[in-house]
Amino acid sequence: MNFKEAYSQKIELIDNYITFHLDSKYSEVSPELAEAMKYSVLNGGKRLRSILCIEICHMLGGSAEKALPFAAAIEMIHAYSLVHDDLPAMDNSDVRRGMPSCHKKFGEAMGILCGDALLNAAYELISESCEDSSSVQAFKCIAAAAGAKGMIDGQVIDLNVAATNECYLKLLTKLIELKTMALIRAAILTGACIANCDEKIMSDMSEFAYHLGLAFQLRDDFEDIIEDGAQCGDSPNFVNFLGAANAKEMLENHAASAANILKRYDNSEFLSQLHSFLFD
Amino acid sequence: MNFKEAYSQKIELIDNYITFHLDSKYSEVSPELAEAMKYSVLNGGKRLRSILCIEICHMLGGSAEKALPFAAAIEMIHAYSLVHDDLPAMDNSDVRRGMPSCHKKFGEAMGILCGDALLNAAYELISESCEDSSSVQAFKCIAAAAGAKGMIDGQVIDLNVAATNECYLKLLTKLIELKTMALIRAAILTGACIANCDEKIMSDMSEFAYHLGLAFQLRDDFEDIIEDGAQCGDSPNFVNFLGAANAKEMLENHAASAANILKRYDNSEFLSQLHSFLFD
Repeated sequence: MNFKEAYSQKIELIDNYITFHLDSKYSEVSPELAEAMKYSVLNGGKRLRSILCIEICHMLGGSAEKALPFAAAIEMIHAYSLVHDDLPAMDNSDVRRGMPSCHKKFGEAMGILCGDALLNAAYELISESCEDSSSVQAFKCIAAAAGAKGMIDGQVIDLNVAATNECYLKLLTKLIELKTMALIRAAILTGACIANCDEKIMSDMSEFAYHLGLAFQLRDDFEDIIEDGAQCGDSPNFVNFLGAANAKEMLENHAASAANILKRYDNSEFLSQLHSFLFD
Repeated sequence: MNFKEAYSQKIELIDNYITFHLDSKYSEVSPELAEAMKYSVLNGGKRLRSILCIEICHMLGGSAEKALPFAAAIEMIHAYSLVHDDLPAMDNSDVRRGMPSCHKKFGEAMGILCGDALLNAAYELISESCEDSSSVQAFKCIAAAAGAKGMIDGQVIDLNVAATNECYLKLLTKLIELKTMALIRAAILTGACIANCDEKIMSDMSEFAYHLGLAFQLRDDFEDIIEDGAQCGDSPNFVNFLGAANAKEMLENHAASAANILKRYDNSEFLSQLHSFLFD
């Protein structure tokens, strides 16, 4: 089986798990709420965060099956953040992955409530999977990344930047660390927590998450430039800030650092292939 | 010390804990986010839910100190739900407890994000307090009540009723059970979980929560009628549905049932006084 087939299978695993979970857990709630939740989370996402979580856990000798509910919870948190970011008072986006955004399809009140429900559903699922101290560690890690010291402050900074048109490299870096990198890092560290690994490995994984997250954002920024010709100001972007040559070098350095950490571990075949797929 | 003084002291205990927690935990986040969070949760609330949580725990022989973070988390969840309910796309309320509502003071985007941050902050606090299986039980209990099978579906039903002007007693009862009673019940059961009580007592507390929650809502509905002269349709209300005499009888029956359960327990002085204060 080639990498793309393997990756598709992993997406299917996550999506089937989320589908089954939502269908069985929320079968009796108001149909439009249940529908909006499924619509917003099962929308053809690449599942990068959840796959990282599961594969890191596998690489470190943990049970991928045990990581699965936490991985699914992370996807629900990611989905909620997109639903709320799309709201008229936020980024006011009518489209998400080529489809009407949640509030565009279900109305603004349902956009707010569906986001709330997905965020809470993530913690409901975690609460049902908290069976030992490593699960509680994973719970802490996810809750810290998703909150006011993580993703949410990232969105606050992003809105401030959009409103004032003022940005500088240090602020952009902070924005990205909070808005994008925090949840990717939490996904990786959650996999490591569930595998019950020691502090040395946890520190390695934290470093891996830093390099991978930054490389991933730089890659995204290059794609935005190609797609939209994004300019500094309306869309703060590393490529605009650093210039294409510097940004490319930075991307390559961080991607290489991430790859070097993976090389130290057995059972990292899939993650190495994923890395090549993203950055080669 | 009379009851009102004792009650005020308990409010102060909760508010001090929440203040200290938010100040120390979120000192480095964007100032407007930190300010909005404090503004929305420290707004002179009666702290009924958190005080029930702590006092039930105390009555059942548990450590009130151990219940405190869970009680504070419940208040943050209650506060987030009010912030989101007040948003223009929801109940569109400019005022909360005689002050500008969160989005009115900080803008709509911050209203959404502050609500998200408070909901997540509740789980961050719980994640840091999950030290044994009784804490995990409390976590499950809170997450279930706050989610799509609880409070959130209650708000969905409430919005549907407001939009269609269609309500009937069974639907009103479901709405109240989800929107109001679920979190009150979770507060009570959380106190019982932290006290590590057995199934028989848990079942008693569940029954107590049912009667107290319903009596509390009926009391609220009478107050609404007196304040606003609320009419069925624009504000579904037990008094309108049942007539004042029937509603009063229902209130008295549920209040009496709740009081009878308390009588079976030692150390229920404060809760009995609270009950008298609310219903006599």
